[in-house]
Amino acid sequence: MSSTYTQLKDHLTKISHLNHLRRITEWDEAVMMPAGSGEARATALATLSEMIHDMETSEKIKDLIQHAKTESLIDPWEKRNLYLIERNYRRSTCVPARLIAEFTKASSLCEQAWRQLRAENNWKDFLPLLKKSFSLIVEISQSKADALQCDPYDALIDEFSPGFNQAIIDPIFARLKKELPDRVEKIISLQQKEKFLTPQGPFAIDSQRQLGLELMQALGFNFQQGRLDVSHHPFCGGVQEDVRITTRYNENEFISAAMGICHETGHARYEQALPIQWSGQPVGDHLGMAVHESQSLLVEMYACRTREFMEFLSPRVIHFFGDQASLTPDNLYLLYTRVKRGYIRVDADEVTYPLHVILRYELEQQLFKKELTLEDLPDAWNEKMQSYFHLSTVDNYKNGVMQDVHWPVGCFGYFPAYTLGSLIAAQLFSTVTKAHPELFSEIKHGNFSTLFKWLNTHIHSRASSVDVNTLIKDATGSDLDPNYYLAHIDERY
Amino acid sequence: MSSTYTQLKDHLTKISHLNHLRRITEWDEAVMMPAGSGEARATALATLSEMIHDMETSEKIKDLIQHAKTESLIDPWEKRNLYLIERNYRRSTCVPARLIAEFTKASSLCEQAWRQLRAENNWKDFLPLLKKSFSLIVEISQSKADALQCDPYDALIDEFSPGFNQAIIDPIFARLKKELPDRVEKIISLQQKEKFLTPQGPFAIDSQRQLGLELMQALGFNFQQGRLDVSHHPFCGGVQEDVRITTRYNENEFISAAMGICHETGHARYEQALPIQWSGQPVGDHLGMAVHESQSLLVEMYACRTREFMEFLSPRVIHFFGDQASLTPDNLYLLYTRVKRGYIRVDADEVTYPLHVILRYELEQQLFKKELTLEDLPDAWNEKMQSYFHLSTVDNYKNGVMQDVHWPVGCFGYFPAYTLGSLIAAQLFSTVTKAHPELFSEIKHGNFSTLFKWLNTHIHSRASSVDVNTLIKDATGSDLDPNYYLAHIDERY
Repeated sequence: MSSTYTQLKDHLTKISHLNHLRRITEWDEAVMMPAGSGEARATALATLSEMIHDMETSEKIKDLIQHAKTESLIDPWEKRNLYLIERNYRRSTCVPARLIAEFTKASSLCEQAWRQLRAENNWKDFLPLLKKSFSLIVEISQSKADALQCDPYDALIDEFSPGFNQAIIDPIFARLKKELPDRVEKIISLQQKEKFLTPQGPFAIDSQRQLGLELMQALGFNFQQGRLDVSHHPFCGGVQEDVRITTRYNENEFISAAMGICHETGHARYEQALPIQWSGQPVGDHLGMAVHESQSLLVEMYACRTREFMEFLSPRVIHFFGDQASLTPDNLYLLYTRVKRGYIRVDADEVTYPLHVILRYELEQQLFKKELTLEDLPDAWNEKMQSYFHLSTVDNYKNGVMQDVHWPVGCFGYFPAYTLGSLIAAQLFSTVTKAHPELFSEIKHGNFSTLFKWLNTHIHSRASSVDVNTLIKDATGSDLDPNYYLAHIDERY
Repeated sequence: MSSTYTQLKDHLTKISHLNHLRRITEWDEAVMMPAGSGEARATALATLSEMIHDMETSEKIKDLIQHAKTESLIDPWEKRNLYLIERNYRRSTCVPARLIAEFTKASSLCEQAWRQLRAENNWKDFLPLLKKSFSLIVEISQSKADALQCDPYDALIDEFSPGFNQAIIDPIFARLKKELPDRVEKIISLQQKEKFLTPQGPFAIDSQRQLGLELMQALGFNFQQGRLDVSHHPFCGGVQEDVRITTRYNENEFISAAMGICHETGHARYEQALPIQWSGQPVGDHLGMAVHESQSLLVEMYACRTREFMEFLSPRVIHFFGDQASLTPDNLYLLYTRVKRGYIRVDADEVTYPLHVILRYELEQQLFKKELTLEDLPDAWNEKMQSYFHLSTVDNYKNGVMQDVHWPVGCFGYFPAYTLGSLIAAQLFSTVTKAHPELFSEIKHGNFSTLFKWLNTHIHSRASSVDVNTLIKDATGSDLDPNYYLAHIDERY
């Protein structure tokens, strides 16, 4: 007879098999599924989610956890696994299955409609769908808050970025909100004096795709267990044994797609390097979205915006798009480090990006504190855009409040992860480049092996075996500190 | 409180949601999945299959069926649905889970080995694997036969083609076996005098794909709820709300892919036209593989091999591949109606195809009657090939007994469905063209609306609400009769 702990592990492995199928069909929904199949798919996924939820919340697990705690586990990973199993059990049992199923269906319909409605700048028809989905996530956050004895919005943040909450984030974001606007102002005025050339398109989609595949190859993406495709909103999906990243192409410029692919490849490398022997167990999973974003941003914003990376990129770009004066390493570096105030978060540079996140974070805080309604969200958005970026989004829902996929899919409490991720990335990149200064000359040759070896040792292979604070401190010698990011900005610009 | 019958329906709807996800991920496995992800996917799908099996065989269903039978159902569809639920329940519960698991493993190993061994023409190493898998399917057929009170081989046939058994098939196949060989002889000798031109490639894959999409469009495929992709073996997968058909392209000729697409579109139209209000219920499902094949063959072999279809096809083909003398309607018709004796079933024309099926059917019968052992199968195959096709398969296992995927995957009793499908198609096509002679001139213009309107009324919309004999008799006025097929052959050749 196997130990109770082993039975528990087997149960979780089964759940992970169902999650495998869920993630692949979710990828399919975003990348492959024809438009008219949405409702049937949403219904099918709702049933699966409900079953997974039943398995995650079954009394059986509760009993197994209680028994397993009396068994003596020696391996610290096993101990940590049991701790995480119990934490996750507490998280999932606090929300009624009925609510989960309703939410899954409502958010899926909301997302499907959003794809069309965003293109049409149609906030009016989007609002009722968002309200429905939001009211359910509020209910869910309340259930979680009651069970975990915390603030409802904190309960959501913790689910995406375990180890973080408003008490930690508020002072960090306050610091950035204080420091960044002046820097943005200064950098923009400095950059106005810089002369740079704009590459002339069109840039054939197929060549952009080939370039993307080469970048993924250089960054060590494992194509035996993953793919690159196109979707409306780029993401990294699938499972660790089959990582599906996506991008979108624009014939008029190639930089967004190339950068986006580097970003998603950063995510993918983390997934692909998680310890396979712990696949399906919480301890083998990634350590939350802040750390996940740190891996994508470290690749995109730190490693792949260096002057050295441009040495590698320039001949590749010339190969695919023909020689232009704008494609020299120097000019590419200028292009890649442009700072400007813009509407779109995903197109933002590393200096203004945190302000986009802070804007969303503050609005979410207000929504959850009921200081703001969804009806008033576009106005509130516009006010903050005016204040942080001197830009108006009046009647421009498409490039304002409707731009991100997060709210349409009912994903609130996620945005802080991007900026926390960037701060972690800055701290990791500063540490690894101090320990391995040769890394810069390697990057010139498209060689990222030292970087990924270090990341593998200090981040990827550790999966969820420690908490995020320990992870950062072990890797860098200090707690999370926004100074690394600010120093990076000051040095680069 | 809902009725017991409603509870039963809800349970089946849930199962159908899981099957939705299973089918989409199976499609993904064949079309999208990178090679290195196979093991993780197989494991995930095995867990889902086990859960579906548990749900299909749960005691709960048995109790619900018993109760539901005491409720008075008025709608004949509901009555029929309950009947089919009980039939399916009996089918799935009569085989011990242990036996299913053993068979799944043995047949999976046999199939994996077959892919390699067939290429190597290696019957010796294949035989023990086939024996293991076959001995288990014999055991399974025996369990089914005991439960269903029928002959073991009939039990297998009935699962693929409900409503058919050896008593029905034997005289039909005897007739074909008597009539066809002389016709083959005569047609081949007539065709030797015909002069035809072979189109000169290459035929760009992308143009072949565009042509395929146009054919699907003409045939009324609903692209809002379906896709066309590429896979190693063409198939029609997915679910009725999201039908995924596949093909494979060969740059040297375009006819196989074009025909294959018409064939799969025939399957797809049946799926897409099944009554959506019965989705997820047995009564709303297709009526078995013989009827399914009748829909694909009616499109491919009957409607899309007419002289009129070539009038429509010729300018489309010239548009995509440039003008060649070989692409006139007359020459295309000659190409499309070639008859020859060959080794390979899937490459066979409509005249020789039934002989390939009869050969396999007779061998399966002998195997199940224990009049033949697997050791002697290659000799028996060769004898029949000599007799039906004047071809020897001595030492040619690869193009003989090892050519089809069916036996390696443990799929016995399926083959008759192909020829039954063709006979049904002939009978339906004869009926609809007699009632609507304008159909031929419509086809000239790529207009298939009269054809599909008729099929929709008489076949698609009826789903599984009646048995196959009633379906055929209601649609055509008579029982299944091979004379329609023979008359078609005599008329066309």
